[in-house]
Parts: sequence; structure tokens; C-alpha cells
Amino acid sequence: MSETTGRTRWAIAEGYIHGWSNGPEPQRLDHETVCLLNTSQQDAHVEITIFYYDRDPIGPYRVTVPALRTLRVRLDELNDPEPIARDSDYASLIESDVPIVVQHTWLDSGRAENA
Amino acid sequence: MSETTGRTRWAIAEGYIHGWSNGPEPQRLDHETVCLLNTSQQDAHVEITIFYYDRDPIGPYRVTVPALRTLRVRLDELNDPEPIARDSDYASLIESDVPIVVQHTWLDSGRAENA
Amino acid sequence: MSETTGRTRWAIAEGYIHGWSNGPEPQRLDHETVCLLNTSQQDAHVEITIFYYDRDPIGPYRVTVPALRTLRVRLDELNDPEPIARDSDYASLIESDVPIVVQHTWLDSGRAENA
Amino acid sequence: MSETTGRTRWAIAEGYIHGWSNGPEPQRLDHETVCLLNTSQQDAHVEITIFYYDRDPIGPYRVTVPALRTLRVRLDELNDPEPIARDSDYASLIESDVPIVVQHTWLDSGRAENA
Repeated sequence: MSETTGRTRWAIAEGYIHGWSNGPEPQRLDHETVCLLNTSQQDAHVEITIFYYDRDPIGPYRVTVPALRTLRVRLDELNDPEPIARDSDYASLIESDVPIVVQHTWLDSGRAENA
Repeated sequence: MSETTGRTRWAIAEGYIHGWSNGPEPQRLDHETVCLLNTSQQDAHVEITIFYYDRDPIGPYRVTVPALRTLRVRLDELNDPEPIARDSDYASLIESDVPIVVQHTWLDSGRAENA
Repeated sequence: MSETTGRTRWAIAEGYIHGWSNGPEPQRLDHETVCLLNTSQQDAHVEITIFYYDRDPIGPYRVTVPALRTLRVRLDELNDPEPIARDSDYASLIESDVPIVVQHTWLDSGRAENA
Repeated sequence: MSETTGRTRWAIAEGYIHGWSNGPEPQRLDHETVCLLNTSQQDAHVEITIFYYDRDPIGPYRVTVPALRTLRVRLDELNDPEPIARDSDYASLIESDVPIVVQHTWLDSGRAENA
């Protein structure tokens, strides 16, 4: 594994997190996630910037993917500098100091039950 | 964010918008969309050309993605120069004067209810 | 549209067409398709080669995508030189004399009803 | 087919295999697979390394894709050097001595019934 894998810059044009219901339970569980893979021998310091259609970008949200590890980031749980707006289209720009691989996904319901 | 993100030219080979029922309500809601992300400091002027299997391409349809913004375009709502043909395969070519990121998607039913 | 769009060589690693039932109606409709887009001013002459896990590749299957047109090819309907084996994993290599854009998909059930 | 198709290095950031139920039947069938296509005239010797979020990578898992063949690998069936951890996020790095094409997928239920 002498070559690097991935890129230092990724963009995801589509994102959407549902708001919560007024009832005691959420009407719908949203588990929008990005999976990050770092195959290098150095920790990857990752900055996520969130873009909206009607306001300035927010960020960076910071996460670290340790060397030789994968990390699943729940976008609906990010809250520093602030939670991602609910019921609003958003997009993500993901930048890392070492090349990583990024995949955008939704947790399936079976997995959500286990979590 | 000194580097540009994305490309000035994107193509989507698959598209299809269902026609409407004759009844009072549409039988099926189609919300075929493209998500556009512009991470640059300049507005992106975007031209969409629609290709068919049995007639000449139609376009350009024009949209602007402001600097540092994302935009969701509902393809079934484009109507200048003309609506996209229903019940017909089509493909899209998306060209921009600054690099953008493009993703093709369908609105899920939960999101459609909110819209 | 002075630039070309797409590539002259595409590969799809996953394919599978279900066999038919013994009854009067197929138990399950399979509409495995590839969408081809030709944004150039010249017709695209396309050759599809099918790879299996247990026998030599078969092909080429030939289709033409006219200039400035899109074409949906039903893989389960190709039969020259021979139909694609049912109930068997296969992969596709798609080669064209002019750059095209290729997308692999399954027709959804609503669209199948209309067809 | 004088050109090579594909790459010698692929990464899949998302993976997850459910554990088994305690009952007599599995509660849920997981058939997480990668489809590999080798369009070259030489056998492809492939090494898969599995990355976790909380432990060191495991591998290589070795498979061979013969010349001019496609191969579907069931990740939940790999067990040398050890089975992939259940109920745990993982990522895959796939390296080959000749260029191949890789696609990550889940077997659909219809196909699972046939298998």
C-alpha cells in the first residue's frame, strides 16, 4: 500500500435532514451519514463545510479519521459550529489534509434498530 | 477553498418523467431533480440541454447558482423553452461557466409531502 | 458544445437477468437496461461485449446511437449473437467509436406498466 | 480490446454485515458483494484489505479473477484470514495486479431466493 488512496477534496451536492415531529417520538428517523476511509499511515484531519440555497456556508465542522481506520459521521448529529438546518436542502464540501475516500449514504432501518 | 470544485460539463444519461392521470389527482408524483453545488465566489450560469431518442435536443434551459450556494432544480417544472416530454426517455447535458458539482436524484415521498 | 462528452469505453461489473417462470406469465419482469447518450454530431457505433464467470465472453452486440440522441437498450432483449444467459452473473464492456455517456439501470415498475 | 479497462486500486468506504439472530433461521439475509470484472488476457490476482473504525486492518483476503471473466465475491463469506466483523462498520481496499472494474452491491431478495 505505497500509493495513496482517494482525494483530499470531495463534494456531495445532495443532502436533506427531516425535522422532528411535535409528538413524543420522531415521526421519521433520519440518519444521513458520510463514510470516510483513511488508508494512509497518518491521521486525516477533515473539515466539512455545509452549503445552503438561501444563506452563507457554515463551517468548518471538524472530524479526525485515524490512520488506517474508517469512520462513519452522522451529519444530523454535527452541532459545532451549529446543527445542520432541518427541512432544507444542503450540500457538503469535505476537505482533508491526507487523501481519503468518501461515500454518502443513509443508514437502513435494520441498522438503525441495532444502533 | 482556493481550488475549484467540480466540472463545467456534466451529463446524465437517464431521465424519465411520468405523464399525469386523467383524474383529479396525479396518479403518481414525479419529482425528478438535479442538485447543483457552486463552491466558488462567482455565480454559475448554467445551461441544460435535453436530449431525446426521437427528436432534436431542446435547450438551453437556463438557471443560475449563486456564489457559495446549492440549488435543487425540479426538471419536471422546467418550461422555458418548453416542458420536458412526459413518458419519454430523455438525457441531460449540464454546462456551466464556473465549475459546479451535479447530482441527479428523485425526491423521496416524505420530502415531497413537506414541499 | 464544442467539447466531446463522455468516453469511448465503459464497463459495468454487475448484471443479472432472472429466468422466466414455467407458467403462462413471467413471475417477475426484468428490464435491465443501459442508457446511452450521444451529444456529438456523428452517429455512435457501439459494441457491447458480455463477460461471464464460467465461459468465454460473447459479442459484440451492436447498436447505433444517432447523433444528438439518447437510446435505452434493454439488455434482456439483445439476442444477436445470442441472448444473455439468465440466472447468471454477467458484466458488460461498452465500446463506441465516438465518446458517449453510459448509465446502467433497472426500469421501475411504474414505467414498466406504461411500456 | 487493446486498451486496459479499469484500475488496479479501488476503495469502498461503506460496508456493514448484520449479525445472525439467535433463532433457527437468520432474521435477515445479508449478501453484501463486490462484482469484479477482468477484461484482460491475464488472470487478476486480487487482494482485499478490510478497515475498521476501532481496530487494525485485516487482510489480505485473496481472490483470483480469471482472464476475460467476471466474479462476484460474497464479503460475508470471506473467512481467511478471518470473517469480517458483524454489526460493525467496515471499508474495503481492493488491489489487483492487472486493471479490473469493481462494483459494490447487495444481492436483491429475488436473487437470494434463487441462490
